[in-house]
Amino acid sequence: MIDFFDLYLTEDCPYGDETTEFLEIEGNGRIRIKSREHGVAACMDDLAAFYRKNGLEVVNMVSNGDEFNPNDVIFEAQGDLPTIFKLWRISQTFLSMVCSIASKTRFTVELARKSNPDIMVATSRKTHPGFRKYELKAVKIGGGDHHRNSLSDSILVTQNHLDVMEKQVNLRAMRKVEIEPRTREEALEAAPVADILLLDHYSPEELETFVPELRSLNPHLEIAVGGIELSMVSDYAKHVDFIVTTAPYYAKPLDLTSKIRRM
Amino acid sequence: MIDFFDLYLTEDCPYGDETTEFLEIEGNGRIRIKSREHGVAACMDDLAAFYRKNGLEVVNMVSNGDEFNPNDVIFEAQGDLPTIFKLWRISQTFLSMVCSIASKTRFTVELARKSNPDIMVATSRKTHPGFRKYELKAVKIGGGDHHRNSLSDSILVTQNHLDVMEKQVNLRAMRKVEIEPRTREEALEAAPVADILLLDHYSPEELETFVPELRSLNPHLEIAVGGIELSMVSDYAKHVDFIVTTAPYYAKPLDLTSKIRRM
Amino acid sequence: MIDFFDLYLTEDCPYGDETTEFLEIEGNGRIRIKSREHGVAACMDDLAAFYRKNGLEVVNMVSNGDEFNPNDVIFEAQGDLPTIFKLWRISQTFLSMVCSIASKTRFTVELARKSNPDIMVATSRKTHPGFRKYELKAVKIGGGDHHRNSLSDSILVTQNHLDVMEKQVNLRAMRKVEIEPRTREEALEAAPVADILLLDHYSPEELETFVPELRSLNPHLEIAVGGIELSMVSDYAKHVDFIVTTAPYYAKPLDLTSKIRRM
Amino acid sequence: MIDFFDLYLTEDCPYGDETTEFLEIEGNGRIRIKSREHGVAACMDDLAAFYRKNGLEVVNMVSNGDEFNPNDVIFEAQGDLPTIFKLWRISQTFLSMVCSIASKTRFTVELARKSNPDIMVATSRKTHPGFRKYELKAVKIGGGDHHRNSLSDSILVTQNHLDVMEKQVNLRAMRKVEIEPRTREEALEAAPVADILLLDHYSPEELETFVPELRSLNPHLEIAVGGIELSMVSDYAKHVDFIVTTAPYYAKPLDLTSKIRRM
Amino acid sequence: MIDFFDLYLTEDCPYGDETTEFLEIEGNGRIRIKSREHGVAACMDDLAAFYRKNGLEVVNMVSNGDEFNPNDVIFEAQGDLPTIFKLWRISQTFLSMVCSIASKTRFTVELARKSNPDIMVATSRKTHPGFRKYELKAVKIGGGDHHRNSLSDSILVTQNHLDVMEKQVNLRAMRKVEIEPRTREEALEAAPVADILLLDHYSPEELETFVPELRSLNPHLEIAVGGIELSMVSDYAKHVDFIVTTAPYYAKPLDLTSKIRRM
Amino acid sequence: MIDFFDLYLTEDCPYGDETTEFLEIEGNGRIRIKSREHGVAACMDDLAAFYRKNGLEVVNMVSNGDEFNPNDVIFEAQGDLPTIFKLWRISQTFLSMVCSIASKTRFTVELARKSNPDIMVATSRKTHPGFRKYELKAVKIGGGDHHRNSLSDSILVTQNHLDVMEKQVNLRAMRKVEIEPRTREEALEAAPVADILLLDHYSPEELETFVPELRSLNPHLEIAVGGIELSMVSDYAKHVDFIVTTAPYYAKPLDLTSKIRRM
Repeated sequence: MIDFFDLYLTEDCPYGDETTEFLEIEGNGRIRIKSREHGVAACMDDLAAFYRKNGLEVVNMVSNGDEFNPNDVIFEAQGDLPTIFKLWRISQTFLSMVCSIASKTRFTVELARKSNPDIMVATSRKTHPGFRKYELKAVKIGGGDHHRNSLSDSILVTQNHLDVMEKQVNLRAMRKVEIEPRTREEALEAAPVADILLLDHYSPEELETFVPELRSLNPHLEIAVGGIELSMVSDYAKHVDFIVTTAPYYAKPLDLTSKIRRM
Repeated sequence: MIDFFDLYLTEDCPYGDETTEFLEIEGNGRIRIKSREHGVAACMDDLAAFYRKNGLEVVNMVSNGDEFNPNDVIFEAQGDLPTIFKLWRISQTFLSMVCSIASKTRFTVELARKSNPDIMVATSRKTHPGFRKYELKAVKIGGGDHHRNSLSDSILVTQNHLDVMEKQVNLRAMRKVEIEPRTREEALEAAPVADILLLDHYSPEELETFVPELRSLNPHLEIAVGGIELSMVSDYAKHVDFIVTTAPYYAKPLDLTSKIRRM
Repeated sequence: MIDFFDLYLTEDCPYGDETTEFLEIEGNGRIRIKSREHGVAACMDDLAAFYRKNGLEVVNMVSNGDEFNPNDVIFEAQGDLPTIFKLWRISQTFLSMVCSIASKTRFTVELARKSNPDIMVATSRKTHPGFRKYELKAVKIGGGDHHRNSLSDSILVTQNHLDVMEKQVNLRAMRKVEIEPRTREEALEAAPVADILLLDHYSPEELETFVPELRSLNPHLEIAVGGIELSMVSDYAKHVDFIVTTAPYYAKPLDLTSKIRRM
Repeated sequence: MIDFFDLYLTEDCPYGDETTEFLEIEGNGRIRIKSREHGVAACMDDLAAFYRKNGLEVVNMVSNGDEFNPNDVIFEAQGDLPTIFKLWRISQTFLSMVCSIASKTRFTVELARKSNPDIMVATSRKTHPGFRKYELKAVKIGGGDHHRNSLSDSILVTQNHLDVMEKQVNLRAMRKVEIEPRTREEALEAAPVADILLLDHYSPEELETFVPELRSLNPHLEIAVGGIELSMVSDYAKHVDFIVTTAPYYAKPLDLTSKIRRM
Repeated sequence: MIDFFDLYLTEDCPYGDETTEFLEIEGNGRIRIKSREHGVAACMDDLAAFYRKNGLEVVNMVSNGDEFNPNDVIFEAQGDLPTIFKLWRISQTFLSMVCSIASKTRFTVELARKSNPDIMVATSRKTHPGFRKYELKAVKIGGGDHHRNSLSDSILVTQNHLDVMEKQVNLRAMRKVEIEPRTREEALEAAPVADILLLDHYSPEELETFVPELRSLNPHLEIAVGGIELSMVSDYAKHVDFIVTTAPYYAKPLDLTSKIRRM
Repeated sequence: MIDFFDLYLTEDCPYGDETTEFLEIEGNGRIRIKSREHGVAACMDDLAAFYRKNGLEVVNMVSNGDEFNPNDVIFEAQGDLPTIFKLWRISQTFLSMVCSIASKTRFTVELARKSNPDIMVATSRKTHPGFRKYELKAVKIGGGDHHRNSLSDSILVTQNHLDVMEKQVNLRAMRKVEIEPRTREEALEAAPVADILLLDHYSPEELETFVPELRSLNPHLEIAVGGIELSMVSDYAKHVDFIVTTAPYYAKPLDLTSKIRRM
């Protein structure tokens, strides 16, 4: 029940904007956030709601999922100048990050789909602490999926789990059971009972023969791979159902700039 | 008054760890977080406090500011296995980010000090929303400073402020007054009344003559530059007092890995 | 990131315990929470942590999942008397509810397993607002499962969704896709593409022939039924994989009583 | 300062509505919450405020305290379909509970007033953790009163207090002093100094003679009874001023159903 | 469920203690908070708990309710120096306020009891926003009572209520009913049905005859007066049961000073 | 990210307004808050926003910084009567405090400026816990400045810091470095390296010669004095740049009164 934008604003402004107060700036104005790069718009609705909650009028913005070009104004609002100055930095930083994630996700999805039109690209849980909500949303806007949104929504039996398990459990669950086998043997053993196998450290060439072998043990089995470089995405996409990646979260934020003017 | 680690844990575990419950894992174990890269330890005390609050014992950890090498265990804790599994991912992700920031900051500071032993490297406010507290702390551990921690701690008259100002104000304040002039003329005009000038879009060569000219107008004047590439740091460091950078926040997280074992 | 026990205590004690202050009660004492009924212990660890956080010593308690009999002391703690009086009511009410849920869940599971040893009993999302965390936990302790812990962990295409859908979507997802068909025809149509069908308003007799027909269309299909009376559980359990129920949340709280004595 | 509806929504939707996103549902629609049972409307204003805060329009609703019949639509709203799907379940569950409490309270009050038109029916503090605010409000809407809303609003000297008291205190206070005597003798002793006596474990027949005896010792004394069955309410009501009950909180939630349609 | 000391610390330290970090202060030390005035200790346990939560050891402190003299050390703690510097200011300010309230309350109570040993001195709800919890506690420690801790714990029919009332209600309640009559006539009318009358703007001489007249109409009636000067307390105390005052909240904070030394 | 007005309202109304509910007050009305004293309006916009958030209409209010006279209505709102009664007390108390702070600040500033038109009056961090945000804002509205808003916005090397320092640090920082010397010698030593000296326990006569001596060591040095009586303000103002005071926070709240009427 935390209001994340309130948190982000409190981070940036625990006691007021010393500069704007010092300069005694008053009256009304306009902010235009412009991109210096091509990108995909994300979470514009969330930013707009935050502006409205602070009494500003959102004049124009690119829609979530739409692409924009260098020098496009992607968000424009107007109203009380001191409020605009207060929201400026966190707005621009916020958009620079979420639009970058959406852009990078879309790029990865498109690349992967070239070699496998059915591939799903899913991002990991390695989000920036305190920012997951919008990072996950930006991924979906970019056409990606979430591998897991949290520990509470999915079952992934990792190598660490396998290392400490002492008893066998019945692998039936309301959720898909995904297993990350430690060895080739373990993969073959898990294939008949898992819904998804998450494979690590295999080359595309190895997967070319190994995946059909695994599928032959369980026609419903789905195969995921994790931890691969962007440059290898299309090579891997051919052989699997899911590509799990962290890269979009760590993509360089887009280069945005803001102009504030009096009205 | 938010407990950030509680927030980060809630992000990752709103309803319990489905996997560990599903596998009926019980008993005690140990987690070792290892780095695959060289780096600088940061915020280890914060992570340790979080582990202790959750009833785990911290067995060993690298001290804040100390460097570690590939394959070093940087954090080790033990106790209830289900709790270890619950904290695993956010711990590893947390350290991968803050240690990366400390590492990148230290690298930048050392580089800058080679050409100017008195230079201060200060990071911007473009932090990841919800994570500023630890990003700022990691910067200090890495030997950097904060340009501004928030809108409430400093006065920075930006170009946007200059564009909307309608009245002159007396430039006396409890804080240093920093001005970001729009033009060379404005820089010359501001020099006698500012405490700091923040210069943008000047080459090191231009600064070589311009900075002395500015300082001649105000012997106490300090000069900052922002928005420069890492490769140019040592060129700029020679001419100014402060280098303002965002790069450490966006450095690639360190490559860490965790081993969980039963005890 | 809310601390639920703090919330529960604040609900019951926004400004201190007027009675204990009025009576000027001081010194140390002991509380014993006793059950007048047979039941299953749940969330004892959570209550114990709350007591410890408030400086009390937990002397004895029944373990989660263990059964207790009428007149058994199920929780005993000691320490500062005013603190004991402050925690008394919410402790007793809390245990009366979660132990009741665990008891009712176990009873239902045992009943269902008599006719189908592989049946899973899963509870719905109709929890009491503000109390879901512990209601869900008590269900698991009682041997049940969660149909869905939230909107964010599962895909359930309800009749309302079917009524408003305008476009076909590809039914592939990281999660199992569960469909609640509106008609027999829709069930037959959904069977080949769904992971789970949630059937409503069928008699056990109807299911006896209908379920095999559905399974013949998809050997991996799982069948759930919802909204059935406790008395019918064993009749339904024979034919399906999952029984979805809300009853444990609304079971009458156990009849507990507390004795507080000076030490 | 917690926003309870935000808490309830976060419980049910920490990361978005997977189903509605998966089905790519967009556009506008309408939700109608209908009751399959007779009942009393409660907290409709609170639900309406929550809908409005989420940008939906409340088209129609029964007023707090009004009765409704089977098949009546008790709440109707319209707007963004994905938002409607997000609020659906918690709205319906919320109303099913608070309307049930108001209904059960009204029924109990009416029953009690038949034998004593001046009787007050007051509910206990045994509310569901996290839900007290609305449970208490529903009781008032149903015509009941609160025995105590919290430890901070009243003085009730329970048997446990009497067991640990070591010193006599002056029984003057800004609040009424209510005592729960352990024995008949203690009741007689407390009668002259208490404002209210809370009697437990007496039959109506015993009260018929005992209450007048107590009142004769203090003409301002008020008598409350607690822990009685609904079936005995009218027998007890004749003899006392207050009936204290927990039953409305644990009444079975009303059977409500929701229809969502595209507009 | 807010942790008030966390709030107070966040107010004073949103991003760390710039000075102590700047000076690179490390190691262990000791803080001694000393009073330059006579006073009554209050909320020492709360401050001590806050210190302990922050890892410091509380070496010595005056007990709640005990008096101290000029130059007495009233609170002493030791541990990590940077933590001591972080807590210093809010600790000292906190104690300067709550001890002042306890002192002023005790002084007023003692003064009032000289002329009426049974008088109760109760403070109003005009507390400093955000600080009520401890202001109320300090009043009790000083021997005072709370007129009302909040709108939710008492019934006070003020003159504003009387001005807008349109219907008569039955004046029976679980709480005492206190009425603030607008006129002498209204006082006479309310006396038989009220539990407490709150009188304003009467001189002690007027009360000398008026109060007996009111009591003759209702032997259980209690009389309160509000809004009187400290100098008049003993004159009023003779005639009434309760004196309602705001003065302790606005008493000048005690003059405290802190010494921090390395150990 | 706390909503302070929600906190203040929760302090005063955890469970509803017992009186207004008891009296069954309904319908619409108007509240007028009137001052019995001359004063300066402060934080009116914040109170207005709170009223609007609660569905009330603000009809009229004095603007921040404007002066008002005895009997002036300074705030007037209308709408739902029960809501008005709920907000009444905290509104009136809030304004009585912040307007008092603004008034006292303005008075002090005007007094100081008579003897030194360039003087800055800055208030300390000794605010009431939980109320700093508005106390600081009221100071600025009154024409004052903040000595420090928190530990995170400034560097003040106090006598306690000097007592524990073990190593010399380079006194360069992004912020002004303010030092509070323990002795005359230390002041002379600090003058060349500090930005500001904070002097304590000097008479105006002593400062008359000492300040020029200090300034001669550092032409940019600024001088602050703290802990002086209001009566001495103009004597000190002549010799220094900043006067640091706590007095406005502890000024007696203005005497306000509220009239609520039905419409």
